[in-house]
Amino acid sequence: MESNNSTGSQPSRAKLRAAKRRAVLEAGARLFNDQGFEQTSLEEIAAAVSVTKRTLYYYVDSKEDILFGCHTLGLEFLGEIMDQSQDPSLPVTERIALLIRGYCAWVSTDLGATIAMVREHSLSHLRRTELRASKAEVDFQLRSLISQGIDEGVLRPCDPRLVTAAVFGALNWIPHWNRVEVPVPHGAIAEQYLQLVFEGMLPPSAR
Amino acid sequence: MESNNSTGSQPSRAKLRAAKRRAVLEAGARLFNDQGFEQTSLEEIAAAVSVTKRTLYYYVDSKEDILFGCHTLGLEFLGEIMDQSQDPSLPVTERIALLIRGYCAWVSTDLGATIAMVREHSLSHLRRTELRASKAEVDFQLRSLISQGIDEGVLRPCDPRLVTAAVFGALNWIPHWNRVEVPVPHGAIAEQYLQLVFEGMLPPSAR
Repeated sequence: MESNNSTGSQPSRAKLRAAKRRAVLEAGARLFNDQGFEQTSLEEIAAAVSVTKRTLYYYVDSKEDILFGCHTLGLEFLGEIMDQSQDPSLPVTERIALLIRGYCAWVSTDLGATIAMVREHSLSHLRRTELRASKAEVDFQLRSLISQGIDEGVLRPCDPRLVTAAVFGALNWIPHWNRVEVPVPHGAIAEQYLQLVFEGMLPPSAR
Repeated sequence: MESNNSTGSQPSRAKLRAAKRRAVLEAGARLFNDQGFEQTSLEEIAAAVSVTKRTLYYYVDSKEDILFGCHTLGLEFLGEIMDQSQDPSLPVTERIALLIRGYCAWVSTDLGATIAMVREHSLSHLRRTELRASKAEVDFQLRSLISQGIDEGVLRPCDPRLVTAAVFGALNWIPHWNRVEVPVPHGAIAEQYLQLVFEGMLPPSAR
C-alpha cells in the first residue's frame, strides 16, 4: 500500500533501517558533543544504542560516516528553513528572523550541535569540501537578506559579511554553553538574540 | 645588572628559555588551529621551531602542556583587559567596548585562537576545571557590566547572561572564519560588532 515495491515487507524494513541509522547518528552526535569526536569510539556508540559493534556496521560505515551523516541531516533541515526564508512575500526582517529562529532550534539539538562543535578536520578532504559548500550557502542566504534589507532602507548600512559572521558565531556557540542539565529553551535564546541584533543594547533615547 | 641573581648569566638564560617556550607555544597554537589538536604531533611542533623532539621537552612537558600554556597566556592577557575595563571612572558602555575590543584582538592571534578553537576535552580534568574558572571570570565581567548598564539606565533591559553568551559566541567564532590568507583586521571586526551589539541592524527610524 505504501509503496510501488513488489515485495510488501521491504519498505518497512528500509524504514526500520533508516530509523535505526538515525538513532545511531543521534547517539554518536551526543557522545561527540559531550566528550569529543576523537575521544569517542565506535564501541561506545554501539553500546549507547544497545547493539554490537558488528551490528553497527549494518547502519554506518565508520565514525566519520556518523559525523558526516549528522551534518547531512542538519543541512537538509537548514535547507527547509532556507526555503521558508526565501519567501519573497515576507518582509526581509521577518525572513531574517525565520532563519535565525530555525538555525537556533537546529543547533540546540544533539544532531545539529555537531555542526558547531566538531571541527571539520575530523572529516576526509572530499567530505569537508562538500560540507563547506553547504555551509557557505546558509551563510550566503543571511548575507543576501541583510544586503537586501540595506538596499530597501529597512536596515542601517553595515558590512553584511561581518554581521552574518557575528550572528552565526553567536548561534554556533549555543551548544558550547547551553549543554547543561537545565538548558535555556532555544525559543528564549532566539528572541533575545533577535532583539540584540535588530535593536542593540542601547535604548532608543541614547541614539 | 638586570637582576639580583648572583650569577650574571642566569637571568638571560631564563629569558631565552621563556622566549623559546613562547615560540613553541605559538607554533603549537598555529598547528592546532590549522589542523586540529588531535591531528598534530609533537614532532611537527618541534619541526616548526627547528628543534628535535628531545630538545622540545626542555621547554614543554607534553602536547597538552602546550595547549594549556596557550590558554594560560591568553587568560593573562585577558586579565589585563579586564583590569582596564574595571576602571570605574569610565562610562559603562566604554568599559564594555574595551572588553570587546581586547578580546577580539586576542582571539585574532594564533595563541588566542586556541581558546576558541580547541575543545576542552583535550585537557586533563584538573586543567579543564582551572581553565573553566578563568573563562567564567571573563564571562562574569561582561555580564556584570551589562547589568550595571541596565541599572544605570544606559542600556535597555535584557538578559545579561544571554547577551554575554551571544557576544562571546560572535567573538569566539572569529578564528573559525577569519583564518584566511587576507584576514579582516581585528579592529574592523571589533567596530562592526560594537555597532551591532550597541545599536542593532534597524535604523533609529524603525523603532
